[in-house]
Amino acid sequence: MKAPLPNAPTDRTRLRRFSEKADYDAATVHAVLDAAPLAHIAYQMNGAPMVLSTLAWREGDRVFWHGSSASRALKAMRDQAVCLSVTTLDGLVLARSAFEHSVQFRSLMVMGQAQEVTEGKEAHLQAMVERLFPGRWDQLRPMQPQEVKATMVMALDLSEASAKIAKGGPTDPDEDRAWPVWAGVVPLSLQTGAPLAEPDSAEGAPAPQVSWSL
Amino acid sequence: MKAPLPNAPTDRTRLRRFSEKADYDAATVHAVLDAAPLAHIAYQMNGAPMVLSTLAWREGDRVFWHGSSASRALKAMRDQAVCLSVTTLDGLVLARSAFEHSVQFRSLMVMGQAQEVTEGKEAHLQAMVERLFPGRWDQLRPMQPQEVKATMVMALDLSEASAKIAKGGPTDPDEDRAWPVWAGVVPLSLQTGAPLAEPDSAEGAPAPQVSWSL
Repeated sequence: MKAPLPNAPTDRTRLRRFSEKADYDAATVHAVLDAAPLAHIAYQMNGAPMVLSTLAWREGDRVFWHGSSASRALKAMRDQAVCLSVTTLDGLVLARSAFEHSVQFRSLMVMGQAQEVTEGKEAHLQAMVERLFPGRWDQLRPMQPQEVKATMVMALDLSEASAKIAKGGPTDPDEDRAWPVWAGVVPLSLQTGAPLAEPDSAEGAPAPQVSWSL
Repeated sequence: MKAPLPNAPTDRTRLRRFSEKADYDAATVHAVLDAAPLAHIAYQMNGAPMVLSTLAWREGDRVFWHGSSASRALKAMRDQAVCLSVTTLDGLVLARSAFEHSVQFRSLMVMGQAQEVTEGKEAHLQAMVERLFPGRWDQLRPMQPQEVKATMVMALDLSEASAKIAKGGPTDPDEDRAWPVWAGVVPLSLQTGAPLAEPDSAEGAPAPQVSWSL
């Protein structure tokens, strides 16, 4: 049995459209977040809605992102309401009518107040590196105090979150299914290519084990 | 020479951080938008920032998206300020220090007022289908009036837009380059897989020519 999120769904996160695709379980929310490294965060600056696209990573029941301490976006969202979204595009669904075309996806929406993390920043940055490149942190030139200072780390509780997952093929009504056109799914996935070493990369150092197919 | 966008950059779209990666030319903005089908749109609902992730497509100097006429999100953003973002994740950049790690990406931000399109909706939906699946529209069961009615089409001018593109490898300072760790780039791309036909897909109908590597 999957553990429910503490406060989900709220009025803001409860899905109205295609609610059968909604999932408020922590395990599902965590899985979507762990699968995709890229997040888009809506916030307000000078009263206008803005989007920040950024890498994000999960630690327990919080999601984190980072940037320059001089970032206008991060400063603007500190202690303010934000909405973080993660979406993977998993397939194009081709039906017999334009109307029934759709996409397969996994998506996530988290609402809450963005908080600047001031304690233990380096440990969170380590968690980010280790999430992408397990084992790499200890191989790197150690982080310097001025680098930690120049980096802002932000966090958001996952307590108000919902996932939405769309799988499967086209759902044409019966009367359309004999229409003489190809129908099915074109899968999409974010894939890693072969690592390209820098010309002056350390001789004999093994390339990192980064292999995804999201 | 690339044509400049009419009003770019404005104070809101001019990039401050890594401004050498910024590009306000229409040709670059169009290219990023044409490359990636998924957009994230920030808007406000009940005073809170929200994100809608949706497919988007370009026609001339406007970007379009669509959804159900009953969509709360689309109704909330109608005639309101929005910020549309498109981001492709093109590579992970591994440096000798955690601080110099980065990503290769192409991204786009468009600000403006979202407008509902009420005239010629079907032609815009055709443009969407043709952008993803050239030649497919004419093969489909024709769109029915109630399907057009059930669909809301939205548009946003590209007049206030900026692109940001990050290529290349790690930029470690000289004193770090001999550190004994692998350094380079792990490419990432969104790729199509082999089409999976529905069991009752029309016999002999050719699979669509959808082949990407974004």
